[in-house]
Amino acid sequence: MIIVVKPDATEAEVKRLIEMIESQNLSVNYSKGTERTVIGLIGDTATADLEKIQTNHIVDKVLRVQEPYKKANRLFHPDDTVIDVKGRKVGEGHISIIAGPCSVESEEQVVSIAKSIKASGATFLRGGAFKPRTSPYSFQGMGYEGLELLKIARRETGLPIVSELMSLEQLPAFEDVDIIQVGARNMQNFILLRELGKTNKPILLKRGMSATMKEFLMSAEYIMKEGNDNVILCERGIRTFETATRNTLDLSVIPVLKKKSHLPVIIDPSHATGLSWTVESMTKAAIAAGADGVMIEVHNNPEEALCDGEQSITPEQFDKIMTTVKKYAEIENKVL
Amino acid sequence: MIIVVKPDATEAEVKRLIEMIESQNLSVNYSKGTERTVIGLIGDTATADLEKIQTNHIVDKVLRVQEPYKKANRLFHPDDTVIDVKGRKVGEGHISIIAGPCSVESEEQVVSIAKSIKASGATFLRGGAFKPRTSPYSFQGMGYEGLELLKIARRETGLPIVSELMSLEQLPAFEDVDIIQVGARNMQNFILLRELGKTNKPILLKRGMSATMKEFLMSAEYIMKEGNDNVILCERGIRTFETATRNTLDLSVIPVLKKKSHLPVIIDPSHATGLSWTVESMTKAAIAAGADGVMIEVHNNPEEALCDGEQSITPEQFDKIMTTVKKYAEIENKVL
Amino acid sequence: MIIVVKPDATEAEVKRLIEMIESQNLSVNYSKGTERTVIGLIGDTATADLEKIQTNHIVDKVLRVQEPYKKANRLFHPDDTVIDVKGRKVGEGHISIIAGPCSVESEEQVVSIAKSIKASGATFLRGGAFKPRTSPYSFQGMGYEGLELLKIARRETGLPIVSELMSLEQLPAFEDVDIIQVGARNMQNFILLRELGKTNKPILLKRGMSATMKEFLMSAEYIMKEGNDNVILCERGIRTFETATRNTLDLSVIPVLKKKSHLPVIIDPSHATGLSWTVESMTKAAIAAGADGVMIEVHNNPEEALCDGEQSITPEQFDKIMTTVKKYAEIENKVL
Amino acid sequence: MIIVVKPDATEAEVKRLIEMIESQNLSVNYSKGTERTVIGLIGDTATADLEKIQTNHIVDKVLRVQEPYKKANRLFHPDDTVIDVKGRKVGEGHISIIAGPCSVESEEQVVSIAKSIKASGATFLRGGAFKPRTSPYSFQGMGYEGLELLKIARRETGLPIVSELMSLEQLPAFEDVDIIQVGARNMQNFILLRELGKTNKPILLKRGMSATMKEFLMSAEYIMKEGNDNVILCERGIRTFETATRNTLDLSVIPVLKKKSHLPVIIDPSHATGLSWTVESMTKAAIAAGADGVMIEVHNNPEEALCDGEQSITPEQFDKIMTTVKKYAEIENKVL
Repeated sequence: MIIVVKPDATEAEVKRLIEMIESQNLSVNYSKGTERTVIGLIGDTATADLEKIQTNHIVDKVLRVQEPYKKANRLFHPDDTVIDVKGRKVGEGHISIIAGPCSVESEEQVVSIAKSIKASGATFLRGGAFKPRTSPYSFQGMGYEGLELLKIARRETGLPIVSELMSLEQLPAFEDVDIIQVGARNMQNFILLRELGKTNKPILLKRGMSATMKEFLMSAEYIMKEGNDNVILCERGIRTFETATRNTLDLSVIPVLKKKSHLPVIIDPSHATGLSWTVESMTKAAIAAGADGVMIEVHNNPEEALCDGEQSITPEQFDKIMTTVKKYAEIENKVL
Repeated sequence: MIIVVKPDATEAEVKRLIEMIESQNLSVNYSKGTERTVIGLIGDTATADLEKIQTNHIVDKVLRVQEPYKKANRLFHPDDTVIDVKGRKVGEGHISIIAGPCSVESEEQVVSIAKSIKASGATFLRGGAFKPRTSPYSFQGMGYEGLELLKIARRETGLPIVSELMSLEQLPAFEDVDIIQVGARNMQNFILLRELGKTNKPILLKRGMSATMKEFLMSAEYIMKEGNDNVILCERGIRTFETATRNTLDLSVIPVLKKKSHLPVIIDPSHATGLSWTVESMTKAAIAAGADGVMIEVHNNPEEALCDGEQSITPEQFDKIMTTVKKYAEIENKVL
Repeated sequence: MIIVVKPDATEAEVKRLIEMIESQNLSVNYSKGTERTVIGLIGDTATADLEKIQTNHIVDKVLRVQEPYKKANRLFHPDDTVIDVKGRKVGEGHISIIAGPCSVESEEQVVSIAKSIKASGATFLRGGAFKPRTSPYSFQGMGYEGLELLKIARRETGLPIVSELMSLEQLPAFEDVDIIQVGARNMQNFILLRELGKTNKPILLKRGMSATMKEFLMSAEYIMKEGNDNVILCERGIRTFETATRNTLDLSVIPVLKKKSHLPVIIDPSHATGLSWTVESMTKAAIAAGADGVMIEVHNNPEEALCDGEQSITPEQFDKIMTTVKKYAEIENKVL
Repeated sequence: MIIVVKPDATEAEVKRLIEMIESQNLSVNYSKGTERTVIGLIGDTATADLEKIQTNHIVDKVLRVQEPYKKANRLFHPDDTVIDVKGRKVGEGHISIIAGPCSVESEEQVVSIAKSIKASGATFLRGGAFKPRTSPYSFQGMGYEGLELLKIARRETGLPIVSELMSLEQLPAFEDVDIIQVGARNMQNFILLRELGKTNKPILLKRGMSATMKEFLMSAEYIMKEGNDNVILCERGIRTFETATRNTLDLSVIPVLKKKSHLPVIIDPSHATGLSWTVESMTKAAIAAGADGVMIEVHNNPEEALCDGEQSITPEQFDKIMTTVKKYAEIENKVL
């Protein structure tokens, strides 16, 4: 961390600022230029309380040199994290294919989709029981019953299940869900993150609609700080000015997050564009770019889907995509 | 709501689509053009489940004519909503000045600030007890103790208090808080909104960082649908590409939200720019633009603030701003 | 085009509006709903002057059904456009690899890079002679001399050349340039587009930093309207709130632009992220997503580059990328 | 400027880097921390060529301390710039009201509007002769004839005229235009800016749709570097995710640009929101926030306007706005 001092600060003021910094277990490196005076902070600035420094009246700017996250930081954890979910590995050389309906609608629906996607090569079954909807008048999901139907589909196919938890009081019901999803709108629900950090569940953390990659990693850090290192990062499109797609899929997260962090990175093309006819193209792009997997909405009858049918593909379309994905995985030496 | 049918749809397909729509208690108005066929929906489209229509394979586009919110809609509620908070009115000709520290730090701090701002003309005291922070290593607020200190300050000054609720389990502790604030990161925490809708508390709902005005009103609708009409809308800056300010304050919400809705609109310049030296300018702009009030961070010693000192102004600066605000209120025939 | 009439319009007013529309060679389809009255326009709305309609005081909303571009529209031109550049084809099954330095610096530099990239499989040589720079104090390119050096490199390698034209008065000097690039900042320099439309040169049109896909296609339409159909669309990153990358590469343009238009789509990963270490990942993603090619900055000595060295890769890195790209092209049945 | 060196750089490498920097007439201040080594640059970094430094392989980050503009920088020019346009002053305590039609349509139209706005208190007449339009099928302005009609209106009213120049070859025709406007789409047309810098005309420079304030000031710097200091900055809305307004008016530019620069700042509410019914609210906000003026579209018959009628107000509405603006100006001690 580097502090740029205002040009008109007196020597006495600079001295007091340095003493205050040193009282926080940091050393300083002081250098006086012709136009600006600069103070470098030496020590663990990630956990220090730096608010006081930033608001000191002689401070012009504070420039961060080091990233503010520690546990999610590849600098302190050079090897890729591999998460084990009932024997299936997520990360480092493994491609995870999470597929299933936006929302669970009936036993028949979810079991039939689960069987189809398994036959095509999916490795996880996703399905929403609790649905965050923009309008209070839209279908809000089957709730606890939906979770039970997912478990039935798991029993029938052996696919581990992924479902979204919307609120803390639902946590006990997710005891037997294999991967707990935190939705984009909850990415900065810090109390929720903290409590999930106290479990040892794999957490699929979705990037907030307008979260920077740094904030995304800080939210992972909230979970990891409490002791749960099983965090899977999931990009699902960010909000931009473009309206041709629902959101803008930011595939550059793949090289960037993988450079800055050791956590697995999954891409959700379905929510990103909101357009089923782009899913094949975006899935192939995600795998080619180096993602550790994708999360795709598949519905046996998208026109009748109670939620987000517009972005769901059919089992047949999913099967076709999987054929190419397997070829790409081979080129990239990855295990599907 | 208007449905544009794909050019290659057969008459039989169009007929089936119309039947499906009519089964939802909507009538249709069918018009066949040379290039496109268009179906108009007549009836209450706000509460109908329209997902099925959108994903029908012969549907090209669905164009909304009417806004998807009802209770928050000025169309169905032409008069301004005025909210009574312990005898103080929010909305329609009343300017509410909510001021106080970002976070409550001690009895001495909050009482002393409360007295200062009251003397300058503030009408509500704000103070954070639970603080949503991007980093798990930052100060997270005093919690329940903070709420108690706010109540002491209220007793000393008579100012009603505003504080942020971060999670549902904190709700009982907010029984005696006068206005419950829902933060920007919780604007789409739908379960929280629903529960707040079951209380009769005034809710200050902050706009999400990347929420459109329509989504903002839909979140108000979540609260109002459950029976609580006491919603105050608060703009606090949106996320854009600009980095000179922390967020971009969108003052155009004032004329737009007031045209579309009957709810009061408050502006928070402090969080919007994150720069204390812009607060005076932006506060005056908010009042001139027709806001029903502002929410300003005031700290007796911004340099020592445990949170967001960079954006806090001093009681002296606040007093100076209030002097101009009063003149503006007079020109606009508003009561402060 | 659909017009929603305000609820309080009188029948006489609606009648006058309809007459005005009909005076523009459009027919109307009138439907009166219980809440809203809707007028559908039938005929060629793309070229009609619709401003008058939009501002009529009884008009509430105007909803576009058809895209406002004609020549760039796949609806009226179902087959892919293939552009022939000195015998090399751009579009439909051909992958074009455009590589070279950000800016031409010397004969030795550009010839040596051209030879390297050709050996690795590049099909076009790019190099900037005129450089749009944010700061007036930065290197502005070699100008006309740079164009001459590019031609020397073309003579030595046979690679057709691509270079950016910044202003109309430079046009004569681009007579012998094979593809004229229009930079992102000039995407809406309409006078420039119109003049380029009067040539028969292939134009590589870069998407503006904050241009929607619709505006992008409207700019292509400006060129095509004058008679030049040789337009290549190039995505180079859009401006968003994210700062980890210079811009956000929007790969969803590939399926979307290809659905809406018949023009070839090229991706520029170098300018999009501004980070050389992401170029491999993003190039593979672009090819996998179905792009007709990529445009990559290659410099023999990025550290000494006079411009944008941060985003340039070395000839060795380029060679490695090309090896994978060839495998992907094979899977996708495309010719490199 | 501060350089953060990668942790694994050798002492010899750091030495070579320092020598390279010193060869550019800069001194360095070297400080070795426990985790990071930092080099501070002392001297005039604004005009030095820093690309070489940024791409040196041992450099991790480069952090700018000083703004990259000099002539537009308040640091080097503490007093407000006041621009004299035919005896009327723009900047520092003067409020300039620029009003008129989006585009000049006829002598009668522009003269009649000019007379009305003058009577209400406008100080400049605006009118477009050359119109940048997204669609090639929209009305493109009257061209040179439009300029002549503006001059007639000036003769009739005495109001100095403002009009937009779209391309360099139009420059001779603007000899007798009082303020030359550079549109948002041309804000980074660097060749145009450079040539305008060689004139002594007042330039009204509009902010690009997605330009940061820093880039905005860099474009002013392009003009000023050539010797023309008469630059007026004009905010006209930036592009964000919000669609309720055409753009998002960023009024925070007023305090921020005024802190960083000495140039006058004008607000264009009409283009910012694209909604005539927001103009009153946003104009009052601009004046209250400290703008040096506003630029407002006024049309005698918005419904018949050939361009942007949706955002134009009538002379009667303009007159009403001016009444309040005068009261605000008085409170702020400004001359209208």
